[in-house]
Amino acid sequence: MSFQRQTTLTELLSREAFDAALRQVLTERYHIHHPFHKLMNKGELTKAQIQAWALNRYCYQYIIPKKDAIILSRSEDPAFRREWRKRIIDHDGEDDRADNPGGIARWLKLAEGVGLDTDMVISRRKALPATRFAVGAYISLVSDNSMLVAVASSLTELFSPIAIGERVPAMLARYDYIDEDTLAYFTPRMKQAPRDAEFTLELVKDRATTPEAQAEAIDALIAKCDILWAMLDALHYAYVIPGNIPPGAFVPDAPT
Amino acid sequence: MSFQRQTTLTELLSREAFDAALRQVLTERYHIHHPFHKLMNKGELTKAQIQAWALNRYCYQYIIPKKDAIILSRSEDPAFRREWRKRIIDHDGEDDRADNPGGIARWLKLAEGVGLDTDMVISRRKALPATRFAVGAYISLVSDNSMLVAVASSLTELFSPIAIGERVPAMLARYDYIDEDTLAYFTPRMKQAPRDAEFTLELVKDRATTPEAQAEAIDALIAKCDILWAMLDALHYAYVIPGNIPPGAFVPDAPT
Repeated sequence: MSFQRQTTLTELLSREAFDAALRQVLTERYHIHHPFHKLMNKGELTKAQIQAWALNRYCYQYIIPKKDAIILSRSEDPAFRREWRKRIIDHDGEDDRADNPGGIARWLKLAEGVGLDTDMVISRRKALPATRFAVGAYISLVSDNSMLVAVASSLTELFSPIAIGERVPAMLARYDYIDEDTLAYFTPRMKQAPRDAEFTLELVKDRATTPEAQAEAIDALIAKCDILWAMLDALHYAYVIPGNIPPGAFVPDAPT
Repeated sequence: MSFQRQTTLTELLSREAFDAALRQVLTERYHIHHPFHKLMNKGELTKAQIQAWALNRYCYQYIIPKKDAIILSRSEDPAFRREWRKRIIDHDGEDDRADNPGGIARWLKLAEGVGLDTDMVISRRKALPATRFAVGAYISLVSDNSMLVAVASSLTELFSPIAIGERVPAMLARYDYIDEDTLAYFTPRMKQAPRDAEFTLELVKDRATTPEAQAEAIDALIAKCDILWAMLDALHYAYVIPGNIPPGAFVPDAPT
């Protein structure tokens, strides 16, 4: 499916103004402003709610290297592919490097660390349907639109260090069952995300050479923010507000 | 994206048992059991909430003939295509028949009837992202899986007359700004949906000749129920529980 367009630019923005417009999207719409994220950082989520978050977020982690492989498959440029494949290595890990099990394995460790059964998480059966639909929309976004859209949608990584920088110390301080080992996923992300975001931001600024292309890149970033936001909406509705777990989804053992 | 599998059958169900298993999915998971649907039927939604429902449901109506055209495009059988194209005619209407403007035009009339601006509705810009992701998942479901899955996913129509039979009298009785003309969408659906559902049910029973195929059809119907349910989850979260309208989505003029 094509994605929702909403931005119209009548003239080309300067490189600086375009940069600022992209960051403005994140300032307004990145999921650090979501009530579920705020509850997490205030230490106000129950263990059951943390479990629901870890389970559903696994569905997102799971598709990331697939999403990046789609982008690789659409590129005509070996230099671009060499750079972009780092993302796949980061998430899938390296057989010959025990220090890089990859982001997916690290996320499973996090899920196990908060008390979930690893096989249940891997099956993804009990994830919220809304999570599946949101991550499916991310696959469609990078498959069915221009390469500029596919690439620009990853610019949420510009703000990812802010999210991680808030989340990790808050989780270590406020949830006694979470330790640094459980949160090992986030340690390499503090370096990987800025490296990837910097490369992508320069690329998007280089390639968006018309007002239409700049508007398209802005809308791609809005669409990606909508995906992350909708995932937290679904978690908040199902696991914070009582009585709303949809049929077939994860029902925690621990009281919500 | 492939869809979520969950059912395993070790032996072939009889035609009757398979029929019952499909109906059981609907009994448990069809969206008539959703709290938002119940509020609507009890007359407890505000006009703003009815507007949000009409706006978001338009996104679903909008993709139906596209979804059915994908199914047509995948069929090898002219007889099947002759039957299935009726669905496209029902939703897109007929130029030479003023009595059949089609379901999409009728839905726009409903949206206008509850006070929405038609151009805003058609643009779909202010729909909830979660609605877009759910209808995108429906497109993926019929595009990326077997024809059996594509066809079986429409079996929610078996229960559609129940939903309409509850909804229309309740809406006419309980919302003074809604009249029969506004709800004209639903009148032909009371005949179309059972006609389509009967054809599809026989087809699915004929074609699902292995335990695996029967399980696949059951899971397709579950996936479709999840789509409809998630749409109401998103409406309920954003427009019934205060403070949750996501960035960029429809903000009613009338108080929610």
